[in-house]
Amino acid sequence: MKKIGIVGGTGYTGAELLRLLLAHPEAEVVTITSRAEQGREVAERYPNLRGITSLRFDSPDEAPLIDCDLVFFATPNGVAMQQVPSLLAKGVRVIDLAADFRLRDAEQWAEWYGQPHQCSELLASAVYGLPEINRQSIKRAQLVANPGCYPTAVQLAFLPLIKHKLVDLQALIADTKSGVSGAGRSANVGTLLCEASENFKAYGVTGHRHLPEIIQGLAQAGQVDIKQIALTFVPHLTPMIRGIHATCYSKLTVTGADLQEMFVQHYLNEPFVDVMPVGSHPETRSVKGSNLCRIAVHQPFQKDTVVVLSVIDNLVKGAAGQAVQNMNIMLGFPEQLGLQVTAVLP
Amino acid sequence: MKKIGIVGGTGYTGAELLRLLLAHPEAEVVTITSRAEQGREVAERYPNLRGITSLRFDSPDEAPLIDCDLVFFATPNGVAMQQVPSLLAKGVRVIDLAADFRLRDAEQWAEWYGQPHQCSELLASAVYGLPEINRQSIKRAQLVANPGCYPTAVQLAFLPLIKHKLVDLQALIADTKSGVSGAGRSANVGTLLCEASENFKAYGVTGHRHLPEIIQGLAQAGQVDIKQIALTFVPHLTPMIRGIHATCYSKLTVTGADLQEMFVQHYLNEPFVDVMPVGSHPETRSVKGSNLCRIAVHQPFQKDTVVVLSVIDNLVKGAAGQAVQNMNIMLGFPEQLGLQVTAVLP
Amino acid sequence: MKKIGIVGGTGYTGAELLRLLLAHPEAEVVTITSRAEQGREVAERYPNLRGITSLRFDSPDEAPLIDCDLVFFATPNGVAMQQVPSLLAKGVRVIDLAADFRLRDAEQWAEWYGQPHQCSELLASAVYGLPEINRQSIKRAQLVANPGCYPTAVQLAFLPLIKHKLVDLQALIADTKSGVSGAGRSANVGTLLCEASENFKAYGVTGHRHLPEIIQGLAQAGQVDIKQIALTFVPHLTPMIRGIHATCYSKLTVTGADLQEMFVQHYLNEPFVDVMPVGSHPETRSVKGSNLCRIAVHQPFQKDTVVVLSVIDNLVKGAAGQAVQNMNIMLGFPEQLGLQVTAVLP
Amino acid sequence: MKKIGIVGGTGYTGAELLRLLLAHPEAEVVTITSRAEQGREVAERYPNLRGITSLRFDSPDEAPLIDCDLVFFATPNGVAMQQVPSLLAKGVRVIDLAADFRLRDAEQWAEWYGQPHQCSELLASAVYGLPEINRQSIKRAQLVANPGCYPTAVQLAFLPLIKHKLVDLQALIADTKSGVSGAGRSANVGTLLCEASENFKAYGVTGHRHLPEIIQGLAQAGQVDIKQIALTFVPHLTPMIRGIHATCYSKLTVTGADLQEMFVQHYLNEPFVDVMPVGSHPETRSVKGSNLCRIAVHQPFQKDTVVVLSVIDNLVKGAAGQAVQNMNIMLGFPEQLGLQVTAVLP
Repeated sequence: MKKIGIVGGTGYTGAELLRLLLAHPEAEVVTITSRAEQGREVAERYPNLRGITSLRFDSPDEAPLIDCDLVFFATPNGVAMQQVPSLLAKGVRVIDLAADFRLRDAEQWAEWYGQPHQCSELLASAVYGLPEINRQSIKRAQLVANPGCYPTAVQLAFLPLIKHKLVDLQALIADTKSGVSGAGRSANVGTLLCEASENFKAYGVTGHRHLPEIIQGLAQAGQVDIKQIALTFVPHLTPMIRGIHATCYSKLTVTGADLQEMFVQHYLNEPFVDVMPVGSHPETRSVKGSNLCRIAVHQPFQKDTVVVLSVIDNLVKGAAGQAVQNMNIMLGFPEQLGLQVTAVLP
Repeated sequence: MKKIGIVGGTGYTGAELLRLLLAHPEAEVVTITSRAEQGREVAERYPNLRGITSLRFDSPDEAPLIDCDLVFFATPNGVAMQQVPSLLAKGVRVIDLAADFRLRDAEQWAEWYGQPHQCSELLASAVYGLPEINRQSIKRAQLVANPGCYPTAVQLAFLPLIKHKLVDLQALIADTKSGVSGAGRSANVGTLLCEASENFKAYGVTGHRHLPEIIQGLAQAGQVDIKQIALTFVPHLTPMIRGIHATCYSKLTVTGADLQEMFVQHYLNEPFVDVMPVGSHPETRSVKGSNLCRIAVHQPFQKDTVVVLSVIDNLVKGAAGQAVQNMNIMLGFPEQLGLQVTAVLP
Repeated sequence: MKKIGIVGGTGYTGAELLRLLLAHPEAEVVTITSRAEQGREVAERYPNLRGITSLRFDSPDEAPLIDCDLVFFATPNGVAMQQVPSLLAKGVRVIDLAADFRLRDAEQWAEWYGQPHQCSELLASAVYGLPEINRQSIKRAQLVANPGCYPTAVQLAFLPLIKHKLVDLQALIADTKSGVSGAGRSANVGTLLCEASENFKAYGVTGHRHLPEIIQGLAQAGQVDIKQIALTFVPHLTPMIRGIHATCYSKLTVTGADLQEMFVQHYLNEPFVDVMPVGSHPETRSVKGSNLCRIAVHQPFQKDTVVVLSVIDNLVKGAAGQAVQNMNIMLGFPEQLGLQVTAVLP
Repeated sequence: MKKIGIVGGTGYTGAELLRLLLAHPEAEVVTITSRAEQGREVAERYPNLRGITSLRFDSPDEAPLIDCDLVFFATPNGVAMQQVPSLLAKGVRVIDLAADFRLRDAEQWAEWYGQPHQCSELLASAVYGLPEINRQSIKRAQLVANPGCYPTAVQLAFLPLIKHKLVDLQALIADTKSGVSGAGRSANVGTLLCEASENFKAYGVTGHRHLPEIIQGLAQAGQVDIKQIALTFVPHLTPMIRGIHATCYSKLTVTGADLQEMFVQHYLNEPFVDVMPVGSHPETRSVKGSNLCRIAVHQPFQKDTVVVLSVIDNLVKGAAGQAVQNMNIMLGFPEQLGLQVTAVLP
């Protein structure tokens, strides 16, 4: 059993991480922190955990983090960058579920996140935790930057096309739809049931923080400079709790490719990517609570526009599940350990 | 008061039509038909109408349709084409809310709707009832083909761009999201609450019947042949009752245009199109129950991709409300009469 | 046209009031106040009102309230009691949608609302604004206390039984279910979509503020002391925006009464109470956006337990609509003026 | 590994059973039948099972049921009674999730279910599968009648009160609320998203089939004749997929009892009943996907009305989960085996 810590346990990501780790046969959560809730039983806040765990929230200042084999940060952006260096120095490995270490360029980070990066010296060694791209580096990483939810769904959709250089990198469109849990558990008017249910809207069309993260990933996959990627990224809020659906459009630059076969081959050995049969329309509910990404590739009327549909659970493959997948890789466990959960349907 | 008939009153479109017409100061619904429900009080089926109307469903065979000034068909595709000719012959004007007269090409219709067109001689004179394009023809029309829900939202989004020849007609994308009422009131497993709520999915990516309708409309607007339009159209089902959100992408072929001003001017005198301020994200709930289409135009990072967001209530501006708007135009009433309903929010 | 003011326009009740008054043919809203939003266009906050009104929020300190014929308070509990006396002194009539003047006993008020009552001298003359009980007093009232949402649904369900002394006043149960809008537009974690959707729970079983209000009303109806009423009141939160469903249980103390006929007769002339046919189950959606209360009375297996089902829209008959109904009565308008809205369904 | 069969695999109950059994370490599903879907892959129908199982639906006539150690029937009422006798004769043990063997009185069954009982000779030996009452009999049972969803929630709420003879058996009220999945996966208009969401209503107030089942269970618990029980049972439909909330009212006939302590003691050793702390309000989402029943007992204002709140997942503890619990008891497995699933929240 490895000793695991969770810093920031009161948001949806932290709670989901705890749910997964409590059922993981090789992980023992020894501490979960919350400044606001310290001393309170975790199960009081998360009624689904009553009877499952007797953990209490620890003060972040006194939590036994340095005794852990691995610590997850499920904190707001800007927190992990302050605490990670001292943990790494003590040999504790870290997975950050926030955005602190996702962008390699500190200036770009500062621009998109509205604050200076306080730990830019770690950016070069931090590994972007998308196993379908970086599995080998993740194995050896001391610090993993867990990807954002939209970036996971969008990158997995575009990856095979870009790797195989089949599409125009200057004409990528990602039209994405997220359940409301992507906005977190903060008390905001905009995510009240009365505001967000029976409603559908776009947001952030003028610029969303996940845009540079996606571009960086696609550029790496295509082995091109980020300036060669032009992506139009439009996120929408859809009236449900969990799930992301990415509808990704690109222009083919070659003809005659068997896209279906290419996708199937590309993801053949990936335990958490399911390429569905020709003509499929993946549903977000089919991955609810599970770590799967399901993908279908379409080429309507055999024209030159490819449409890739990709669905994930934003809190699992888009956050906590992928983090556990990364942990499994880092600690040498089977990659699927503790993650073989079937979506509850209906 | 004009005498109005509704053929096919048991679906959502028929019910919405009835709700609007019962509140219309110049329309008197003299008959509403249903073979399955004939003799039954309308209010038994639609509990919101208890105390509002004492109408009963008439048998379609005995309904006094020829005494009407205008008859609406809210029937399944393929029904109106059988009954419309005899009504027109008697001088009764008709608005068909189904698809029977939307496409000008009978062969294309047969191909998309899976049955031969039985009344192709009327296709040339039927007027496509999108007032923002065809207002003058609607005035004089004997037969109006009321547009589909997606086609209304998508055409209103693309119209100004295409009229002003600003975009590449070979690179149009319409990523559309509809509430479940778009699928009608039939008992289907796929639209059960347990199947469609807490879920998001695309459908019909391989070809949706609204595609040729949209292309025909855009070609007319651009004064080009339909073959010059390449549109990728991806509809999605979103877990709510009412509302369509169209996210429309196109490539600018000119630079320096003030798109916002152009949209504002284009729709300046349109009573039911609201061009929102720069940076807006229209919400479907802001038009729920109302006949408005709200539109926002974006040009992210001033690049050459334009993103137009457009929302309507699929049962109002996307069906029954637009039909009443057409009736107002045909019968010489003020265009907004009976349609000045404010969306109920929250 | 009468001049109308709204104090506190940013909550759901204030917004609903504004929606109804903007469509009212005899009311002109001359001011709507908000300290937090002063100067801002109302339509910016309520996107459904874009194009419907150009009102801006006034500062509560500078709003021309004393020029109004009637002022509505849609403020938090405890606000109206501070401002009402000076308005009344100037001859302005007032309808308070909060709880300040609902209870006749200042001590009881202080106990349930956790603050001393600062205007107890007005409690005797304030009229409880349930037209179905107090229509005549409302006509002449200077100050009307608009009822709470649960109290409206529950009192209308029990009234005929209690008036006719048919039931045991010591064995009343009101099991009530409310949509989430009853909790208002404040940013609370508990009413986030992610917390409140796909969930059902009771709350306040240990004591809810609407309990003494209901008991006071039932005691008045039965002409007994409040101590003779024993009511068990259990509210629940149901995952939808609008609507209250009250399931009310009582024990018959007489036999052989024709309950259906008695309910029908009792409410025969009430414009906003619909007694449904024997065997009916009223649906909350049938009154969404409308001022109706629909009621069905059941006596399962002819035993001595009566079950009355009653539904309202909590923001209309349970708040703003009833307030407009009271205004109509006070100002001598037809009681239904501006309130003949049909619920939008589906 | 025991060999398990499922007859009737296409409804929600069958699918849930399959989900649970596929994760059960000692159960191997060797056949799942469906006449309509025979030959089709199960995962095509239940997209959450893609990659989890390669089972195909078997024809009910050819399925190897007699090779099974235990067969579950997840069929419509009236089916199991025809097939169970021959299986029992071959030594196969059976759990019926339908209602065929729940009532001991064949005449009462015929009256409530509208058809004659075709296998009344088995009613005496069939064991009602509520482990909290009948655990010992279940162990030895050849045929278990798995309880209905409402009956499970209501009986567990009333049981301690009735066992301890604390309440008036002539004044029991169960006000129950169910998610829509309780109505099954049949295509009915009433359970369409557009009909059932944003709506709340009672149904079956004049008599619901679960009423005699509950009364039979409570009579057994109280060791009284069923005629001594008077229960008013009002079910409601609430706009969510899963979950039952029972609000149960009864009149205390004794004073001074420590109800909380009594409930805690009563359920102390029950693995799937969680008595929550004083003042709690259990939420349906806290048991979604899990086999738990959470209960809170209230005595408002210390008066003589007891209010017991009880929540279950109707498809798990209310159906498939309880069936697996019964299987575990019958086959000698640890009772919690395969059922320690934490609810996914939010």
